Amino acid sequence: MKFYDCKTAPSPRRVRIFIAEKNIELETIEIDLANREQLGAAFKAINPDCTVPVLELDDGTRLTEVFAICQYLDDAFPEPPLMGTGDVERALVTMWNTKIEHQGLAAIGDYFRNLAKGMKGRALTGPDDYEQIPELVDRGRRRLKNFMVKMERHLNECEYVVGDVFTIADISLLVAIDFAAWSKLTIADEMVNLRRWYELVSLRSGAQV
Amino acid sequence: MKFYDCKTAPSPRRVRIFIAEKNIELETIEIDLANREQLGAAFKAINPDCTVPVLELDDGTRLTEVFAICQYLDDAFPEPPLMGTGDVERALVTMWNTKIEHQGLAAIGDYFRNLAKGMKGRALTGPDDYEQIPELVDRGRRRLKNFMVKMERHLNECEYVVGDVFTIADISLLVAIDFAAWSKLTIADEMVNLRRWYELVSLRSGAQV
Repeated sequence: MKFYDCKTAPSPRRVRIFIAEKNIELETIEIDLANREQLGAAFKAINPDCTVPVLELDDGTRLTEVFAICQYLDDAFPEPPLMGTGDVERALVTMWNTKIEHQGLAAIGDYFRNLAKGMKGRALTGPDDYEQIPELVDRGRRRLKNFMVKMERHLNECEYVVGDVFTIADISLLVAIDFAAWSKLTIADEMVNLRRWYELVSLRSGAQV
Repeated sequence: MKFYDCKTAPSPRRVRIFIAEKNIELETIEIDLANREQLGAAFKAINPDCTVPVLELDDGTRLTEVFAICQYLDDAFPEPPLMGTGDVERALVTMWNTKIEHQGLAAIGDYFRNLAKGMKGRALTGPDDYEQIPELVDRGRRRLKNFMVKMERHLNECEYVVGDVFTIADISLLVAIDFAAWSKLTIADEMVNLRRWYELVSLRSGAQV
């Protein structure tokens, strides 16, 4: 297997943490997003959607999209399970991971990509250029705040995002929170549950990647 | 099990088709989105995110988010499998379903919700109000066109979205195409592969819901 990565980007980091938590060893190829290597012909031949992460299997199949890659790795390397155990828990993990993607990661992504000077004309990932839309900066910040309020409330009821087990939903939330902090949007002081959860999760050895 | 539905909305239709394809019988409760029943206290107690579909299990667990609900149903009612068989096919189905959600359904959603008069102040689903952003109308249309070009190319290589088997990825694409057509954005005449696929899939009895 080959893993196409970029050390500075949030999406591949979600898979890197997943890989570290499972202790999987694989060949890693760094793609230089800062210099737009993902838009060049060589990488387009690997992933026409011009995104990392990509997982290339030994039979040549190339998987893109974080959740699909993690699902494959969870099937191929079952221990420790990171996507839930049993029908209901598995569905709850997928549900929470989806909420974190749509309400958290998408919000901070909108904020960052529509604000940063280096993202001019690149407001969305992918092969096609889209101009920045300034209104999405404020909307992204507002959505992220509403999302954090929601997670603060939810984490009053459970240790991890889904019950008492660490899963991909925690990985996605950790990456969202770190990406937001890097963009100077931090957890409010009064969000004691989210802070308690962040300390618990961010200290794991798997999170140091 | 109870299924909270809305006959006019695209997201619950994805689950309705999934249920029909599996021949599952369950109690269905219609939520009147046109009159904003999803924002009222009664439905908020069921789903604080104010979205349909919701699947309520017999133990009281409530699942939201289309893919999570379908994953549960595919585990609980395995025949016919609609989310792939085997590690690699399962990952490919998840991957394509994600692409269709992010590049197709999100694009037409942006187009519609930022254009329709009835969606003023409701540019995003959920409990919080967000104003329409006119730039997202054009961007949504452009993204949808790029997405259709991509699917036209892909469907030159396979009968269904993933190989020769009907899956949730076909359901998601069908609902995206029908939602776009309802918004007057139709498949271009020259897209012969996408048209061939559409005829194949839209005639299934499960799609008549």
